[in-house]
Amino acid sequence: MATNELAEQVGQVNIEEAGEKNGNADDGDVVTPWDVQATSDKGIDYMKLIEKFGCRPLGQDLLDRIEKITGKPAHVMLRRGLFFAQRDLSLILDRVEKGKPFYLYTGRGPSSGSLHLGHLIPFIFTKYLQEAFNVPLVIQITEDEKFLWKDMTLDQARKCAKDNIKDIISVGFDPKKTFIFMDTEYMCPAFYENILKIWKTVTNNQSRAIFGFSGEDSMGKSAFPAIEAAPCFSSSFPHVFNKKKDIPALIPCAIDQDPYFRMCRDVAPRLKFPKPAMIYSSFLPALQGAHTKMAASDTNSCIYLSDTPKQITNKIKKYAFSGGRDTIEDHRKYGGNCDVDTSFQFLKYFLESDEELEKIRKDYTSGELLTGELKVKAAQVVIDVIAPFQERRKQITDATVAEFCAVRKLDFDF
Amino acid sequence: MATNELAEQVGQVNIEEAGEKNGNADDGDVVTPWDVQATSDKGIDYMKLIEKFGCRPLGQDLLDRIEKITGKPAHVMLRRGLFFAQRDLSLILDRVEKGKPFYLYTGRGPSSGSLHLGHLIPFIFTKYLQEAFNVPLVIQITEDEKFLWKDMTLDQARKCAKDNIKDIISVGFDPKKTFIFMDTEYMCPAFYENILKIWKTVTNNQSRAIFGFSGEDSMGKSAFPAIEAAPCFSSSFPHVFNKKKDIPALIPCAIDQDPYFRMCRDVAPRLKFPKPAMIYSSFLPALQGAHTKMAASDTNSCIYLSDTPKQITNKIKKYAFSGGRDTIEDHRKYGGNCDVDTSFQFLKYFLESDEELEKIRKDYTSGELLTGELKVKAAQVVIDVIAPFQERRKQITDATVAEFCAVRKLDFDF
Repeated sequence: MATNELAEQVGQVNIEEAGEKNGNADDGDVVTPWDVQATSDKGIDYMKLIEKFGCRPLGQDLLDRIEKITGKPAHVMLRRGLFFAQRDLSLILDRVEKGKPFYLYTGRGPSSGSLHLGHLIPFIFTKYLQEAFNVPLVIQITEDEKFLWKDMTLDQARKCAKDNIKDIISVGFDPKKTFIFMDTEYMCPAFYENILKIWKTVTNNQSRAIFGFSGEDSMGKSAFPAIEAAPCFSSSFPHVFNKKKDIPALIPCAIDQDPYFRMCRDVAPRLKFPKPAMIYSSFLPALQGAHTKMAASDTNSCIYLSDTPKQITNKIKKYAFSGGRDTIEDHRKYGGNCDVDTSFQFLKYFLESDEELEKIRKDYTSGELLTGELKVKAAQVVIDVIAPFQERRKQITDATVAEFCAVRKLDFDF
Repeated sequence: MATNELAEQVGQVNIEEAGEKNGNADDGDVVTPWDVQATSDKGIDYMKLIEKFGCRPLGQDLLDRIEKITGKPAHVMLRRGLFFAQRDLSLILDRVEKGKPFYLYTGRGPSSGSLHLGHLIPFIFTKYLQEAFNVPLVIQITEDEKFLWKDMTLDQARKCAKDNIKDIISVGFDPKKTFIFMDTEYMCPAFYENILKIWKTVTNNQSRAIFGFSGEDSMGKSAFPAIEAAPCFSSSFPHVFNKKKDIPALIPCAIDQDPYFRMCRDVAPRLKFPKPAMIYSSFLPALQGAHTKMAASDTNSCIYLSDTPKQITNKIKKYAFSGGRDTIEDHRKYGGNCDVDTSFQFLKYFLESDEELEKIRKDYTSGELLTGELKVKAAQVVIDVIAPFQERRKQITDATVAEFCAVRKLDFDF
């Protein structure tokens, strides 16, 4: 409760104050949209992050409500705390109970090559939300951000975007309910209008406090936050939503994106738009352990959507950080540590059966289950999770991308 | 020549140095895109401004070339120095001599109500250039800029824009050769792509040095310069120009817009685009005199396109700053001062006949012509200039605006 109350207080400060909490403070962990580094082997201190960012824990009360409303067990990523924080999720559930609409907004800053497991998490979870609540989904691809931040051409960034979109579609989205857009292809008056309104409402000082831009950064970096914030407002999509009504967004994403949406939530009432609600995930640990997240730039830290079963097994065997003991004898005697064990974390987020997971936790903690055995189990679960994505991925062509990206009406009337 | 050489040197400094010359230095005159104030009754010291901005005078050599190439006498606004400065105009003339294309780009930050004479000058001159060289013209209306700088809604800014476009069309542009666009209506991928490229190339420090933005200014003001600069690149208009070839722009405008294009010229080679060329006007003095320009916000300083002949006559009689003497006796004895006389300035820019202008100058300087007589003549000339605009203006409807603003091919094949 104490955390809750503190979060509430912090969440109500004005933008200057919230902006100072830019996740890059001097207390160890770094969590910004561009960098994630933990100081402890146990990974990011997420409860501290909740306080710092001023969001709220996603507690049992909300889980219960979600299960009641959807009539289904909550997704394992919810039940097991991978999605652990939120802003105004209860207001979205209130709307659902009253039969009022909302929409889902998530996105991706494209990277070259195949997506990895960490990238897929928000999309896997978003698909669950979309099916559980039957709502429209918009997915923003920010190849413009990539172009501004990286030493690459727009064409290179767009190629990454197109490849990433194919991977995203392979999660199994329904084109009748899902609009995917690349900023440099979708940019249009309705979108630009909301960008302008956000631009006008936030000063350079505020943006610097929130995002930490310096004088040496490009004009583009300073301009960009409004481009990620604008899709929070349904009027950015007149082909999907009736322009007369403003419908709130629920945004499932990793918590490092909070600065954008903190800014957006501050701006929304001034523009007479509903505030977006958020549901935030922690980071899937790198194979090497929870001190950082999977990073596409380090191929040995990731399991890619394109990895073969053999590659997945080898990577987990070779790189997955173990919470086991140095010798079998010690392991049998003292047991393993699930909290820091990457293979166990993978099982936590991908193994459906609560009973099976609990048995593995007990057996590993007691020392009955060895690291090698745990790794084999984790590899098999990951392979099974990825297999249907890979099957769908084979069928996805440029035409499929064009279908999802076409500016068109979706199967909803609001 | 000294000025020329100095300008050359200054023109070649890098963007940081050029940027420091932001027209708001401590030597008196203020000339920025948002403010123009002279310290002297004779108005802005334009030769000093040429040095400060690092552009070049528009000399007799260029006038001669223009007359030779076009086979016509140069426009009075050129002959009489209202358009007095330039950047790379000779390169544009080189292209014309070689049969290579260029295009004209000008624009307007919309204001409420009717345009005034000062607003019309770049458009009158642009129309001359378009007819003399037979080239495509793009006209940008920056209602987004107005929205970002002023306390108004986007709808209010857009209404101003639509009204202003009607006034601009009344100058007599040919819809087959002219594309007029409002930023919030035209915003599209090709335009945004060039905005992104400019954004990436200029740092916040550089932009602050050029435009003087502060931390208290909105993110939108800092983002905006790229939006005014992007139409300098022909690839912003794929419906007009073959996307494969980059065609240079010639930009006729008032010299206060130089910061945008100085930035753009610095950026262009880095983006492998041709630098835009410029042809700059001084400011039409306010009725009250040359210490400031006509300002729409001060109705008594302006003659509006919508003013009746009677209103024009009354305004000039009542407000036009006189270079005449306090009494008729003194005037007959000592003569009047044409340099500071607003009515004479109007004649200088709108009276076609060189002989008649010279006679008036002589007669007023000698004291033979009285202030009242000069005012009557100036009023008649202004009424005659405005009359055909007013006639055309009556015929212009929303459909005419839609015709000019339609995204379409123009009557050129390059």
